Amino acid sequence: MSHGRVTIPTDDTFVEETKQIAKLWGADAIRDCDGVELPKNPKDIAKKVYKTYFVVRGDNEWGRKHREEAHRIFLESNRVTSMTSKISIDVMNGYLQDQIAPDLDNLDRWQVFDRTTGKEIKKWNIDNHNVVFECEPFHEYSVDFMARMTWHPVQIYNYLTNNWTCEKQLCYDPAYPNTRKYIKEYLQKWLDENPDINVVRFTTFLYNFGLVFNNEGKERMVDWFGYHETASVPLLEMFEKETGIHLVAEDFIDDGCYNSPFRLPRENYKKYMRFVMKFVSSTMKELVDIVHKNGREAMMFLGDDWIGSEPYGEYFKEIGLDSVVGSVGGGVTVRMLAEIPHVKIHEGRFLPYFFPDTFFPGNEDNAVAELNKNWNTARRALLRCPLDRMGFGGYLSLAVKYPKFVSRVTEICEEFRNIYDVCEGAKPYAKAKVAILNAWGDLRSWQSHMVAHELWYQQIYSYQGILEILSGLPVDVSFISFDDIINKGINKDIDVIINVGDEQTAFSGGEFWNNEKLISTIRKWVSDGHGFIGVGQPTSCIKGSRTFALSDVLGVDQEKGFTLSQDKYNITKKSNFITNGLSFPIDYGEGMKNIYALENADVLDIIISDRFKRNVNVGEVMLASNNYYNGRGVYIAGLPYSRQNARLLYKAILYACKKETELEKAYCSNINVECNYYSNKNTYVIINNSNSKETTFFYDINGNKTDINLAPLETKWIKCE
Amino acid sequence: MSHGRVTIPTDDTFVEETKQIAKLWGADAIRDCDGVELPKNPKDIAKKVYKTYFVVRGDNEWGRKHREEAHRIFLESNRVTSMTSKISIDVMNGYLQDQIAPDLDNLDRWQVFDRTTGKEIKKWNIDNHNVVFECEPFHEYSVDFMARMTWHPVQIYNYLTNNWTCEKQLCYDPAYPNTRKYIKEYLQKWLDENPDINVVRFTTFLYNFGLVFNNEGKERMVDWFGYHETASVPLLEMFEKETGIHLVAEDFIDDGCYNSPFRLPRENYKKYMRFVMKFVSSTMKELVDIVHKNGREAMMFLGDDWIGSEPYGEYFKEIGLDSVVGSVGGGVTVRMLAEIPHVKIHEGRFLPYFFPDTFFPGNEDNAVAELNKNWNTARRALLRCPLDRMGFGGYLSLAVKYPKFVSRVTEICEEFRNIYDVCEGAKPYAKAKVAILNAWGDLRSWQSHMVAHELWYQQIYSYQGILEILSGLPVDVSFISFDDIINKGINKDIDVIINVGDEQTAFSGGEFWNNEKLISTIRKWVSDGHGFIGVGQPTSCIKGSRTFALSDVLGVDQEKGFTLSQDKYNITKKSNFITNGLSFPIDYGEGMKNIYALENADVLDIIISDRFKRNVNVGEVMLASNNYYNGRGVYIAGLPYSRQNARLLYKAILYACKKETELEKAYCSNINVECNYYSNKNTYVIINNSNSKETTFFYDINGNKTDINLAPLETKWIKCE
Repeated sequence: MSHGRVTIPTDDTFVEETKQIAKLWGADAIRDCDGVELPKNPKDIAKKVYKTYFVVRGDNEWGRKHREEAHRIFLESNRVTSMTSKISIDVMNGYLQDQIAPDLDNLDRWQVFDRTTGKEIKKWNIDNHNVVFECEPFHEYSVDFMARMTWHPVQIYNYLTNNWTCEKQLCYDPAYPNTRKYIKEYLQKWLDENPDINVVRFTTFLYNFGLVFNNEGKERMVDWFGYHETASVPLLEMFEKETGIHLVAEDFIDDGCYNSPFRLPRENYKKYMRFVMKFVSSTMKELVDIVHKNGREAMMFLGDDWIGSEPYGEYFKEIGLDSVVGSVGGGVTVRMLAEIPHVKIHEGRFLPYFFPDTFFPGNEDNAVAELNKNWNTARRALLRCPLDRMGFGGYLSLAVKYPKFVSRVTEICEEFRNIYDVCEGAKPYAKAKVAILNAWGDLRSWQSHMVAHELWYQQIYSYQGILEILSGLPVDVSFISFDDIINKGINKDIDVIINVGDEQTAFSGGEFWNNEKLISTIRKWVSDGHGFIGVGQPTSCIKGSRTFALSDVLGVDQEKGFTLSQDKYNITKKSNFITNGLSFPIDYGEGMKNIYALENADVLDIIISDRFKRNVNVGEVMLASNNYYNGRGVYIAGLPYSRQNARLLYKAILYACKKETELEKAYCSNINVECNYYSNKNTYVIINNSNSKETTFFYDINGNKTDINLAPLETKWIKCE
Repeated sequence: MSHGRVTIPTDDTFVEETKQIAKLWGADAIRDCDGVELPKNPKDIAKKVYKTYFVVRGDNEWGRKHREEAHRIFLESNRVTSMTSKISIDVMNGYLQDQIAPDLDNLDRWQVFDRTTGKEIKKWNIDNHNVVFECEPFHEYSVDFMARMTWHPVQIYNYLTNNWTCEKQLCYDPAYPNTRKYIKEYLQKWLDENPDINVVRFTTFLYNFGLVFNNEGKERMVDWFGYHETASVPLLEMFEKETGIHLVAEDFIDDGCYNSPFRLPRENYKKYMRFVMKFVSSTMKELVDIVHKNGREAMMFLGDDWIGSEPYGEYFKEIGLDSVVGSVGGGVTVRMLAEIPHVKIHEGRFLPYFFPDTFFPGNEDNAVAELNKNWNTARRALLRCPLDRMGFGGYLSLAVKYPKFVSRVTEICEEFRNIYDVCEGAKPYAKAKVAILNAWGDLRSWQSHMVAHELWYQQIYSYQGILEILSGLPVDVSFISFDDIINKGINKDIDVIINVGDEQTAFSGGEFWNNEKLISTIRKWVSDGHGFIGVGQPTSCIKGSRTFALSDVLGVDQEKGFTLSQDKYNITKKSNFITNGLSFPIDYGEGMKNIYALENADVLDIIISDRFKRNVNVGEVMLASNNYYNGRGVYIAGLPYSRQNARLLYKAILYACKKETELEKAYCSNINVECNYYSNKNTYVIINNSNSKETTFFYDINGNKTDINLAPLETKWIKCE
């Protein structure tokens, strides 16, 4: 049994037991957890000792003394329809009094809008929190106001849920020179007071993502990518000085959309993001330098105040971090963490948390099941790009009471190290190079269609499935933007481009599809022998009779009513390489309405309503393929992650770029089983993703076929001579 | 047993049997049918004798002699993506050679477009049917070309299906003075040759709706409202002279949408429609005058070449018709026919046709079932607004072989006359006045969401259901346009406005919802105590965080991805007047995706996916109501016609305008049973819409409740003292 690469939580009341578990699981690092203290002499337990460190919260004394240096946020008041020609809007309606305070010192940054016409109202007065003005009856109005953050949002949920009574954490903005100086001094002091800590676990840096509570203390808004809290007066002033661009409240409010990552990003917003990234990186670099000067490691938790430190952003490398840690929800989050550049150590925190909601008598099997599910989805991705370390969070004392759980973790830790040993530095065999095309490109690698980190939304799971599937497929994955193609063309390495999402979003592209260069570049590239896969409403940009700009490539379009008069006869399902061997019905998640096939496309799956029988103008295409000169288009209505859907996309990718003959190489025929191959180590790994025994044909890299049996969940290594 | 108001088909081989049936059914009119001749001395059989008359087809000699005066049509070639910098497009690709011939004499009216950029290509040459030009590689191009109609489209389907070999019917355009003169002379000649005919059944007038076949002889395009064949050079020239507007091919092609009635109508197109209506009316007036001078009646078949004679249009009255006849597919078509102004007689042709596809041995029960279904849906509407006459089409000799069928028609004819006797001139009691709001207003009364007259499309039945339901509800129905409201406000009689349809269509309104006057007028009107019902994507006009312009009135909005970050907690279904007593699940047809309730709305029905459990941000609202000051909004995802859905809409209307207490007056509690009341005759009619015996509470106009039993399909009259 090997050792290392595992982090466990502990506390000062649980020292001996922690040592035993550390031995069992091979843990070489310990960490603290909310509400507990690390043991004295922690290095007796493990080589590495992590401790949580907050940069912009935690010192309420500083926060109280410098309330004027608190973070700011731009918020939109509730929208109110006027009944008369005068209106009064209480901006605090619907917001949590304890979280924010309207910033009356910066009233010049407030704006009032007639949301019915879109016009700004310039004449208004304020009376306490009420904005009063003359208006048009039966128009709708709202106020974009600046507020001080008076409670760090990440603390609010736990605080309210657990009825805490401690002081509420204030926060302070290092864009103020005073606070910027202070956070450096405070860090040095903390390092001095914590000599046993060798890893400073930053949780996280300077600006929290958008997280706003309502007047009942429930979450009102959550956007893990939101720049809400960067509404900092000094930052805005610095930005204006540097760029000449005067940002106003509405640049943040964005007609109520708050620059959601689903919106097509506007130029000024993208410029401000870059500016904030530069500021956060340069500020954090100074802190990280202090950490290093003190002989410690700097680790970033990819979670809380991470805005401006986007790991795939241009300035991230300048921070000089040693490591990142983030939670693992499945394959996508593994890849999101594992591929972060410019850090040496990538650590994943696995599920379940050791919390009382999972670890209670009678629930052990569920805990094990959650562990297995998490591991199963993560394992696929680790085999493509391993994490350097794994860990758990919560209270170890809770988990150790359950021996089946402890034993399964022991196995997983060992498997994790085995995977690392083979996969680190070993380029896994890739049958195709796939690029996800959206408005964000590589800045949001492995982050498309996320709202709150990891949360399920009905509107996104059918698209997130594409990334979850890709995270474990034997293909290389990159992320490119529309601007990349418009400015630089398509990298010639790419075999297949995938465009996924709902119409008008940053993910499908919206008005980018009015750009003739984008369209003709992709058409030419596909016609040269490449593949284009569209999912949902790909390339959607309604223009007369056409909804999808690349309907000619995809072979399908969406009926918006304007061409109902035009007969659609292509409604017969055909068999095809992509669907051969798969079981119908296929799970398209939310699917898509009103997709019809163009004349020459191959309909691979179509749902025909049983309300009416006709041989024309019925049916909704779910899956189609289309020959486009020497290349191919493939359309999929939606594709949540499942084992069968993973196989479907795998085959669709190979079909799109005409590599069907590559399928039965380093391949397992059983859809529950996946195979990776590491040529430089002449090693195959075969994983059983199911909880049952499975039998499969295994094809080696030359296509030689053998029978293989796998135990439930087994990872089987085949090292050739 | 009464007599009259019934028309039957006959032919010269079936005289005696026709007389017997005429007696049995009380028929007082006979008509001819395709491929048969009327008997000699037809007036011996019936008082009225109809004969089909074609204005612009039927005389191939004229057509051959004046090929240059054939109808013209603008068509778009197939769209072609260029691979190189030169392209050749064969405009006839995909079109039926026998139907059209490219009009090389009017090449100045052709246009070539780059459909990728939307720009017109001015330099091109033509080589036979191939348009050749230099182009950008990987752009998509098409040619808008003018073609001569060389075969009347209505004949094509029957001709090809039945392998006819007769000469193909040519057509000729009375916009040419020569043809215009000819059609009058021909009519007089025909009247002279047909002295026994006292009703000239025009089938129909001058321009056919859009009906185009593909190269395999299958329908390529059908738009019952399409002005395709009004692409007449003399008409275009007259229009230009009158208005100064030079219409080009693309005004007709409309980026491939051919001015579908689902498109928001453009101003020039609306002006041209008016011009064509004026031309058709003035031309037809001359023909009708000739009919009258000869002592005959002029009847219009609302079906074939009816373009320009829209019965609810401004110029229709000037034609001076005596009667209209049209086919009855259900309640909507009954109302569409029955409410046509400026004609004395409204006749409906009921189903089934007496054709061999229905009348064959062993199929009698199906024939009776089709008859009953047709009668059942029509009866509801007749009780609101009776037709003056009913009839059948096809071959009587086929139908009379089936005694159950003959007997059921006998009953229905008698019921029809009973309904007429009570309802004609008797204003039925209406509990509310409802207006359907769309871009077409009263011009397309009872015609919204139709594609091909009567055909089922998956994209429309969930909206057509609203009209079908309204056709038989005890409410008054009118049709208003956005322009009506913007220019004239809302008629104060109206209690409830209904806006139905998919986003961006003429039916929901698209960019009209950027008009602040429209929005604030409706808001004020609802707040004063009226009701607004939205179905599908009502008032949809995406603007930042809002999708529905009147989301504040409706209490719901549609999530397009841009506000996924904002939490939606209103997901709990409440009981309500509208749904009380109805059975779940309710049939919303195609329903609608991603509808969520605003904070204060009442969710009346919501579908929550079983994929994920959460108490926030899940569920798709199907039905909701919302108090809006003194009025109410109601949202419905879709509502195909069914007996329960009819009750649902009935209650939703009363709820929206706060007339709930009106429900149990002149009302039957059983959803299979409907009641109408005629106060001036102090008479109730109660109909059983089901095939089973039904029991119901019947409430009279004062709310007094009694038990009533009804036989299957029964019509029960209750005349009070």
